[in-house]
Amino acid sequence: MQKIYVQDLNKYLGKEISFSGFIDSIRDKKWVMFVILKDSTGKVQMTIEKSEEKNQELLEIMNQLTVDSTIKVEGTLLANEAVKLGQMEIIPQKIEVTSKAEPLPFDYNNLEGVNIDTRLDYRWLDLRNEKNRFVRQIESTLVMGMREFLYEQDFTEIHTPKLLGTASESGSEVFEVKYFDRFAYLAQSPQFYKQMAMAAGLSKIFEVAPAFRAENSNTNRHATEFTSFDIEFSYIDSYEDVMELEENLLIAGLTKVKEKYGEKIKEIFGKEVVIPTKPFPRIKLEDLYKELHERYEYQIPTEDIGDLNAEAEKLTSKFAMEKYGHEFIFITGFAATKRAFYHMRDENGELQGYDLIWRGMEITTGAQREHRYEEIVKNANEKGLKEDVKFYLEFFKYGCPPHGGFAIGIDRLTMLLLNLSGIKETQFLFRGPNRLNP
Amino acid sequence: MQKIYVQDLNKYLGKEISFSGFIDSIRDKKWVMFVILKDSTGKVQMTIEKSEEKNQELLEIMNQLTVDSTIKVEGTLLANEAVKLGQMEIIPQKIEVTSKAEPLPFDYNNLEGVNIDTRLDYRWLDLRNEKNRFVRQIESTLVMGMREFLYEQDFTEIHTPKLLGTASESGSEVFEVKYFDRFAYLAQSPQFYKQMAMAAGLSKIFEVAPAFRAENSNTNRHATEFTSFDIEFSYIDSYEDVMELEENLLIAGLTKVKEKYGEKIKEIFGKEVVIPTKPFPRIKLEDLYKELHERYEYQIPTEDIGDLNAEAEKLTSKFAMEKYGHEFIFITGFAATKRAFYHMRDENGELQGYDLIWRGMEITTGAQREHRYEEIVKNANEKGLKEDVKFYLEFFKYGCPPHGGFAIGIDRLTMLLLNLSGIKETQFLFRGPNRLNP
Repeated sequence: MQKIYVQDLNKYLGKEISFSGFIDSIRDKKWVMFVILKDSTGKVQMTIEKSEEKNQELLEIMNQLTVDSTIKVEGTLLANEAVKLGQMEIIPQKIEVTSKAEPLPFDYNNLEGVNIDTRLDYRWLDLRNEKNRFVRQIESTLVMGMREFLYEQDFTEIHTPKLLGTASESGSEVFEVKYFDRFAYLAQSPQFYKQMAMAAGLSKIFEVAPAFRAENSNTNRHATEFTSFDIEFSYIDSYEDVMELEENLLIAGLTKVKEKYGEKIKEIFGKEVVIPTKPFPRIKLEDLYKELHERYEYQIPTEDIGDLNAEAEKLTSKFAMEKYGHEFIFITGFAATKRAFYHMRDENGELQGYDLIWRGMEITTGAQREHRYEEIVKNANEKGLKEDVKFYLEFFKYGCPPHGGFAIGIDRLTMLLLNLSGIKETQFLFRGPNRLNP
Repeated sequence: MQKIYVQDLNKYLGKEISFSGFIDSIRDKKWVMFVILKDSTGKVQMTIEKSEEKNQELLEIMNQLTVDSTIKVEGTLLANEAVKLGQMEIIPQKIEVTSKAEPLPFDYNNLEGVNIDTRLDYRWLDLRNEKNRFVRQIESTLVMGMREFLYEQDFTEIHTPKLLGTASESGSEVFEVKYFDRFAYLAQSPQFYKQMAMAAGLSKIFEVAPAFRAENSNTNRHATEFTSFDIEFSYIDSYEDVMELEENLLIAGLTKVKEKYGEKIKEIFGKEVVIPTKPFPRIKLEDLYKELHERYEYQIPTEDIGDLNAEAEKLTSKFAMEKYGHEFIFITGFAATKRAFYHMRDENGELQGYDLIWRGMEITTGAQREHRYEEIVKNANEKGLKEDVKFYLEFFKYGCPPHGGFAIGIDRLTMLLLNLSGIKETQFLFRGPNRLNP
């Protein structure tokens, strides 16, 4: 028999039902026992009158149970105006204990003061917190909205290998894998294979998959493993086409979230889901530097010239709200030296790429890619890359259309959407230099 | 400007257009040059009259180009009944060369006789083959259909870590990763974390993600990395609920493929997309053994008793077609010793799981899982698993609803759907013991 979820119970008023769930709480009064049951969609009350002879067995079962145990109840669902919780109650005839819970190490309904590491050690209990569980549903909906948009645009979803034969992109931050009698390396991004798909003539592809970074840093926005939403598409005229697609993609994802959960997000997270207007504002880096200096007396440090840093990103969002009333802002005109060799530069050496900033943080680096064999070889040589990207350079030898793309870390996106305090709160199960468990 | 794809060209008849694509072929006649251009949706003819003065520059450009180079053409799209290819032709005014192709190492339009390893070395050229590119679009559509079904059923998509702190499930087939000053291990499946989600109360989840197996075997159906479509859901009564969900899921995926590509699959692969009827036939292993013996004089080897092997799987499909006229068949009643410790057994020790066979191959192992702490600890101990699964056993200490699930390798599913010769032909980019490149 199919499980009836709390959200659908109102269809069964007055009927005999079977209901399964966790025990949320037990209030044991003199004449009656109130048991609150819950599943992933809500809570419902079960009422056991103590005076009734036939209930003695049920009370005995319940008396031995702790909260967070799971039960399956057979009984009648009655409408009852007096019950605050949904104006209904289950009157049980039979209770089956499906699992027993030992006393919990902390109260997941009140996580204030519980150390984040303890919470992660017991992440499955931490996720029982309504808010934390809701994060998962929101992220899933956000990704669904983005995916559906791409399906409509006839994009093909691909699955590229995460085991690589060479330590691509940047050797220092790549994980090494023992691979039979040799070594393999974990993909830091699907970049090279997204572009391989372009050389193959697939024209429009996306991938949602793990990416791995061997960065030994402990910030609130970095993880050694994260989920990357990657896009690449061909026949573009410039990176303007890439920015436009990203605008549409984000709007599609956020619209889906707002439709399904907008009200509940306001209620639980106190955040409005804002659907951004098009076009997002765009500014060149040198103009941005001037604005940050004039408005906030901010001077970019010498080592970051040609790029942004965390502080500058924060101020950039402030500026975008002040000047454009917009939460998103595209920055162009980064120094070619500050970006990967596969980003295209124009005939004047100007980088054909952008960063997208949202709520004080960079969420994307996107670009038109270099698709011409001679040029990409030159760029790679300039960066001192040789053997490691040799296989990749081959992709461009036999014709390849102009193309571009970008990546979005969906954990970071969800974190910013809900104003969560860090990536540890956002991922299903965080991975960092000191965190591989559970 | 947005790229116009061949499939949409008929909306632009008589108009000035810009068209980008690969050069498929050049037929250089005395009075005219015919150039066939293509993109991921089809082919179109470009016609250059040699007598016209204004075309001399265009001819000069084309004369220097090889097939598989890419160009961007500005010109007029004319209806022309005489043109076999879509009854239309592009009359160019301007041609821009966007990339030049060197001579190709093989003709991807005719792959007969080309070694599979050569093809994989140049997979991006191999994928230019129309059939091979189409495999990607079909797989994407299959997964889309399955995902959409789950979204409708309110399943939450999760992303579980692939870097693990311990070599779970079976130590011998797991890849070891250097992880700062210690080791991590690559997930062979998301099994433990799917179940963690159940203990967290998420109730219905799925994941589509890479899985890694350090198997040093070279068959046509094994890879060291593959894409696994994983499902887990709570509050089930038995593994019958799991089988029913899998029926519905496969029907949804296959229906989507048939709707979108049924005709084209028949044409290109000579295969009918069959939507299976419900319920799929079910048979107990001991009864199946009898049938295979009676019908085909097949006797299961001693070492495989309690399980199936590749030959038995083939015969099982033959039997399913003969007896039930069905391409799918569920087998139940496997020996508990032949299955993982987390599969539930009933009070008589009978395994509460199944295999699903399609077209001669196992595509799924599914089961109700053991969710009771004492029982799962006992099962783990019986299998001699201790430290490695300790973290996993903890998930069941604090209450966990009854649940079950299954995994489908989508590469294998696509391979069987299209009758491809092996997994190397099916994956975007195959990974095996001797294959990490490109």
